[in-house]
Amino acid sequence: MSLQEQIHSIATRARTASDRLAELGAREKDAWLLRCADRLEAEREEILRENERDLEEARVKGVAEPLLNRLALSEGKWNDMIAGLRDVAKLPDPVGGIEDSRLRPNGLRVGRMRIPLGVIGMIYESRPNVTVDAAALCIKAGNSVILRGGSEAIHSNLALARELRAAAIETGIPEDAISVVPVTDRKAIVHMLKESRNIDLIIPRGGSGLIRMVTENSQIPVISHDAGVCHIFIDASADADMARSIVIDSKLRQMAVCNGLETLLVHRDTAGTVMPSVLKALYEEGVEIRGDETVCQIFGDAKPATDEDWAKEYLAPLLAVRVVDDMDAAIAHIRRWGTNHTEVIVTESERNAQAFLRRVNSSTVGVNCSTAFSDGYRLGLGAEIGVSTSKLHAYGPMGLEELTTRKFVLQGDGQLRE
Amino acid sequence: MSLQEQIHSIATRARTASDRLAELGAREKDAWLLRCADRLEAEREEILRENERDLEEARVKGVAEPLLNRLALSEGKWNDMIAGLRDVAKLPDPVGGIEDSRLRPNGLRVGRMRIPLGVIGMIYESRPNVTVDAAALCIKAGNSVILRGGSEAIHSNLALARELRAAAIETGIPEDAISVVPVTDRKAIVHMLKESRNIDLIIPRGGSGLIRMVTENSQIPVISHDAGVCHIFIDASADADMARSIVIDSKLRQMAVCNGLETLLVHRDTAGTVMPSVLKALYEEGVEIRGDETVCQIFGDAKPATDEDWAKEYLAPLLAVRVVDDMDAAIAHIRRWGTNHTEVIVTESERNAQAFLRRVNSSTVGVNCSTAFSDGYRLGLGAEIGVSTSKLHAYGPMGLEELTTRKFVLQGDGQLRE
Repeated sequence: MSLQEQIHSIATRARTASDRLAELGAREKDAWLLRCADRLEAEREEILRENERDLEEARVKGVAEPLLNRLALSEGKWNDMIAGLRDVAKLPDPVGGIEDSRLRPNGLRVGRMRIPLGVIGMIYESRPNVTVDAAALCIKAGNSVILRGGSEAIHSNLALARELRAAAIETGIPEDAISVVPVTDRKAIVHMLKESRNIDLIIPRGGSGLIRMVTENSQIPVISHDAGVCHIFIDASADADMARSIVIDSKLRQMAVCNGLETLLVHRDTAGTVMPSVLKALYEEGVEIRGDETVCQIFGDAKPATDEDWAKEYLAPLLAVRVVDDMDAAIAHIRRWGTNHTEVIVTESERNAQAFLRRVNSSTVGVNCSTAFSDGYRLGLGAEIGVSTSKLHAYGPMGLEELTTRKFVLQGDGQLRE
Repeated sequence: MSLQEQIHSIATRARTASDRLAELGAREKDAWLLRCADRLEAEREEILRENERDLEEARVKGVAEPLLNRLALSEGKWNDMIAGLRDVAKLPDPVGGIEDSRLRPNGLRVGRMRIPLGVIGMIYESRPNVTVDAAALCIKAGNSVILRGGSEAIHSNLALARELRAAAIETGIPEDAISVVPVTDRKAIVHMLKESRNIDLIIPRGGSGLIRMVTENSQIPVISHDAGVCHIFIDASADADMARSIVIDSKLRQMAVCNGLETLLVHRDTAGTVMPSVLKALYEEGVEIRGDETVCQIFGDAKPATDEDWAKEYLAPLLAVRVVDDMDAAIAHIRRWGTNHTEVIVTESERNAQAFLRRVNSSTVGVNCSTAFSDGYRLGLGAEIGVSTSKLHAYGPMGLEELTTRKFVLQGDGQLRE
């Protein structure tokens, strides 16, 4: 069987499984989730052995430390993964409810029923826990999932998938609803991206190279989880203490996350008052400041920023800082350099708060809070499969509901259009 | 300027215009819609002259009659187009409202605000009235629109767009929010499909060749309006009169529409009772019947159907008919041959009605009503830009709301994640 045939066969079986899966209720899906948690716990040693194999091969190849960290199923990650399965089982089933039901003048009842998307293709990089997290959410929403993780995690992913599929057989879920592409050849991705009859959605998670490659080659709809160049704008009326604590939380809580602060915009009126103490606090925590001319004049430890700094998702102890004349200039900067992820204004002016919320059309826009709230759990979605920066279907943190769609359901007693 | 630069310049200007447009309220957008109606009425003669030029060139090229009909701005189409502008002005503004607002335990208020998608690229074929209909809906939803109609309609489209842009200047709408690609070279489409920084959504409307070409080449999300192979299933318990009138309405009301009936599935128990009278009524109205073996045995005027008939969107006085053993077989047929458009069951069994509604995941699923209700106006959306057969973002008839997306809005008083 050629690689193309192999991928086509996985995709066709996933499609058939999705028809059966869509008809199952919460009971079967939740039983599967709990069974997966139990099976993984029982097979933990064996799975960690496979993970060690991946790590060993990666070390031999001289892979860098951060990638090794992502690849390793540490105790913390393992426990989160198991807890995640049990948490998702507790969430309400997103499928089957009828919304927006209304009676038309001719007596026809029209509503919209939430249904699974069908088959979801996940394309991701080194973290093997994504295999379990993504499968849990896709299946709970009634979708088959085809998982294509990084080649460096192949042994871990196959070991995890073996348990997920075995749990399916035990709980009446079609096992082909969960599959891991068993080949590491990158061409497998290209074949996947052409299976538009059998796959309804592709979700790429990873670096910009992966996302570009997927977007450019896919004949299937893609929801990208792209970079987050997130901004905070300190307005003229900002409370100094609040501004400082929000900036610190947004930048320092976690560096290597897409909802972390990357560029700080400061209203000219506060450049001499609020800004220095904010920058000093960050600088003392080891954050390098790259500023425009005004910033460098006021804060001696800043280095000059270039256009590259405005465009950069650092994910590191670096912060770009710019002084702007007013909110219009801040919004113009965000439109020019932002990535539609998360932007926050710190202000005591209700008028400016409302204007900022209306005028900035990034996927998450906030007033007087940390950028770190741009997260499915924190926003109350119950779960998160990622953060979409493309506007179609899901914009911002994606939960279970975003893994479904709605069909129109019509109930009549003989209505004709005539 | 090369063709690519020309398209890039249109797309960049549309993006800039969309930022301004997104901040305008219903008042400006509705004023523009009404002004367009007035201007088009005032310039009617001139526009029809340009339409006559297109028709003349098409006749010289020996273009077929149905295409000439689609190309012609007949009096009926003209009046619908003008009335459409005024109707859209009366619809509520889909933009700006906050939905799903809730207070999180930490006091952070989280909601979702409806916002425009940004820039929409419409790629369509010969009907010049689509230029006006699509622009009206896109602008009302706060989006810039780039219109790429068929080359055979170029003079009509440019004449119409001239008035739409002039009306923009008069009512404070950025004129670059509406543009017609002024070149007929098909390569213009390929360049459009690469403008992923500036265009947020591509909507192709037309034959399957156009849709395939767009889907295969686009780096921008696409919502396809693909063929409708619509089914009616006459269940064992169906009321004979209701079945006959629903089938007749679904097939005969209008043939060349995507929500028309193409395949009739008949429960074996009714093949000898309900079916003959239904088929006779259609046959007498000039519909050719293509049936499976049982159908041909029972209804002498039927011709044998092949697999091609099950897959075909006839849009013509032809009907494929199959006798099935039960509802499971009907659903299996729909899954195998349907196009996720519209399927209807005629039944007196509430149990089967509910099972059909749940199990068939086409974009519109109905009980005891005509397939012709699968239409944005009839379902109460107020307007329709098309019928999506792809599951992402919009599934089924698309109205104004489907031309928008939602961002998360967070209102706090200093909340940190910590």
